[in-house]
Amino acid sequence: MRRSYAAEFAGSAFLLATVVGSGIMGERLAGGNTALALLANALATGAGLYALILSLGPISGAHFNPAVSLVMAVRGELPWRALPGYAIAQTFGALLGVWTAHFMFALPLWQLSHKLRPGVSLMAAEFVATIGLLGVILGVSRHRPHAVPDAVAAYIVAAYWFTASTSFANPAVTLARMLTDTFSGIAPASAPGFIAAQLLAALCVAAGLRLSASRCSGRI
Amino acid sequence: MRRSYAAEFAGSAFLLATVVGSGIMGERLAGGNTALALLANALATGAGLYALILSLGPISGAHFNPAVSLVMAVRGELPWRALPGYAIAQTFGALLGVWTAHFMFALPLWQLSHKLRPGVSLMAAEFVATIGLLGVILGVSRHRPHAVPDAVAAYIVAAYWFTASTSFANPAVTLARMLTDTFSGIAPASAPGFIAAQLLAALCVAAGLRLSASRCSGRI
Amino acid sequence: MRRSYAAEFAGSAFLLATVVGSGIMGERLAGGNTALALLANALATGAGLYALILSLGPISGAHFNPAVSLVMAVRGELPWRALPGYAIAQTFGALLGVWTAHFMFALPLWQLSHKLRPGVSLMAAEFVATIGLLGVILGVSRHRPHAVPDAVAAYIVAAYWFTASTSFANPAVTLARMLTDTFSGIAPASAPGFIAAQLLAALCVAAGLRLSASRCSGRI
Amino acid sequence: MRRSYAAEFAGSAFLLATVVGSGIMGERLAGGNTALALLANALATGAGLYALILSLGPISGAHFNPAVSLVMAVRGELPWRALPGYAIAQTFGALLGVWTAHFMFALPLWQLSHKLRPGVSLMAAEFVATIGLLGVILGVSRHRPHAVPDAVAAYIVAAYWFTASTSFANPAVTLARMLTDTFSGIAPASAPGFIAAQLLAALCVAAGLRLSASRCSGRI
Repeated sequence: MRRSYAAEFAGSAFLLATVVGSGIMGERLAGGNTALALLANALATGAGLYALILSLGPISGAHFNPAVSLVMAVRGELPWRALPGYAIAQTFGALLGVWTAHFMFALPLWQLSHKLRPGVSLMAAEFVATIGLLGVILGVSRHRPHAVPDAVAAYIVAAYWFTASTSFANPAVTLARMLTDTFSGIAPASAPGFIAAQLLAALCVAAGLRLSASRCSGRI
Repeated sequence: MRRSYAAEFAGSAFLLATVVGSGIMGERLAGGNTALALLANALATGAGLYALILSLGPISGAHFNPAVSLVMAVRGELPWRALPGYAIAQTFGALLGVWTAHFMFALPLWQLSHKLRPGVSLMAAEFVATIGLLGVILGVSRHRPHAVPDAVAAYIVAAYWFTASTSFANPAVTLARMLTDTFSGIAPASAPGFIAAQLLAALCVAAGLRLSASRCSGRI
Repeated sequence: MRRSYAAEFAGSAFLLATVVGSGIMGERLAGGNTALALLANALATGAGLYALILSLGPISGAHFNPAVSLVMAVRGELPWRALPGYAIAQTFGALLGVWTAHFMFALPLWQLSHKLRPGVSLMAAEFVATIGLLGVILGVSRHRPHAVPDAVAAYIVAAYWFTASTSFANPAVTLARMLTDTFSGIAPASAPGFIAAQLLAALCVAAGLRLSASRCSGRI
Repeated sequence: MRRSYAAEFAGSAFLLATVVGSGIMGERLAGGNTALALLANALATGAGLYALILSLGPISGAHFNPAVSLVMAVRGELPWRALPGYAIAQTFGALLGVWTAHFMFALPLWQLSHKLRPGVSLMAAEFVATIGLLGVILGVSRHRPHAVPDAVAAYIVAAYWFTASTSFANPAVTLARMLTDTFSGIAPASAPGFIAAQLLAALCVAAGLRLSASRCSGRI
């Protein structure tokens, strides 16, 4: 189990370094063209996530996301007692990743985002983004587990663009992105709404799984 | 069969949320650079479609497209009596997807597109786009069924760019895109021509399949 | 063999429609930003080629390129007597593809390119591009034949950017691109140099194959 | 072993032609938009690397990188006596690749870069980039060796964007890029810091491998 925690920690650190670092690079080079910065940010995140899931999936499942770990616990693929450790490793890994990005780009390590992402529509976008992410993971892992890295990476590239919130879809990532006042940051005032929407989506998916499981056992 | 309808409904909803949502995001951020908006739109659609076909393909075949369902019925891979249900689920799913995108981007839910896409050349483009899509699906599903998600997603990315109409290639999607006055919309006046070209392509492919099937049985 | 010729014809037509069509679309939308037009052109060509090789590979080998067919004949994977038919089908398919693109974009069907691509460096680029393409096909088809579509598509995306000539690497494609006065065209005055470089590369690779084959048999 | 050296030489040559050539093309066409030039550079490098690893992996392992060869020697997958030959082939191949790119773009063959890439943060970025690259190679090759080309290519695309140094992560490549005064060059004054960071990362990974190997054997 210690190897799993280490994998979740390292993977979340690299993931956040990728998200935050590519956001900084994109914003610096794009000269005000936000579409180009987001394109680089989305492609880098998708490509990095793909490499990370391929590398660490066999060790820990490569969740890097407490919402995913929660659903995996409901599904019986992660022991419940491992859930807190996963969530803690993911959150601290994500923080380390943010600071690594700041250090590489010679920025102050400690920052607080001022980018407000307010309103019901963005919370709805996070709900949709998380439902989609969990649906893709559950759907693909059941029938074609080897394609999970491909499917998750592709989904995230799409979700950066089709959700109005650019698809955080991950409570640990949302917490960590509060601590960067760069392209990918989120103001602490906006984070609770995002996290609530993400957890609500995870609970809905978990409830749906429970329901369909009880129906199936009812048939037997 | 109810699970199949639900999968077609959900998949079409996510597909349209992706097409319309990424179009809105692209247009908002690209600052008038239509090439950049279309690039984001194409990559997001291809990536999203890939994740959706991988997720839902094992349940319903992941058509999300009445033209595809028609050809699959001709080929004997979908029972004819399921065809109306598939088409209805696809169309209403697509509508829900458009409204989801509008809601996420805080736009009025009900819209009608004013973007005219007129003329014989665009109808020819839709004919070519649909022939190509169906050809790719039939060709790849025969010899390498596991690569269908990859091939369809790649084809759609290409077809966004090489067809003058940006490749709708899907009657349910065309209907739904009438109801968004954003980047990916189509004015109701132009939709019938697009749908006619798409159905004509589907009928040509279906006739070709019948012909080659009768030839083959003739040989036996 | 007739099915193979038909597959080479149809595939080359779709390939050229993709190359020329996405070039037109890219140039129209990019507003003078050639990098963006070439990016769209490269990604569309790579994605389209991937879908085409997956679809038609099992029928004809999906060469769409006389230089590839020549090397395959040397390698014994294509009967020598089929080589002329392949080359003719590829060339006429490519022409049909160019005209299809023109028709979809409502341009005059008959055009002659005025885009000069002169000089020894561009011929050297075509030589390098073709050597690389043939090397990738031979290397990957020997050890991982299922990955040929992926490898060829990826190579072409790279070669659009790293060769100064944007990597035609295909005599049939070069002939057809003389007939479009759009983004992807080549003036008839420059085409012979390109084709000579491509054929020289094919002959070098063929000679290398012969040499190593005779060495191997010499060892036995 | 001679075939392996030849494969490392040829692969490194094509890799550097891709990195330097696509950088020149990107800078020429992007009209001052560095984000667009880097996007083309990153995608071309990732796509080219993917094709090269697929083509040459079965012959030499497709390292193209002395840091990778060192780690493979520690892991016992490359004989120690082959390491100098690998490093020499990689370095001279990389030089040939730079000159090939210059020749294709009609530039003077001999150049020295004036692009300073100074400072501790960029060295830290190279350390992170190399750790990540080696981690991805080790992680993926253990459990899913067939996915190594995909994972490495995706990682490099991401690392171009998320590391402040655009991720050289390769001592042979760093040496060769001193000799091009174009987009992808590095001034000779900055190269030693980059190479030191890369080698330090390789030594850390090698030490980690040794440590875990001795622990494992200790358990037995």
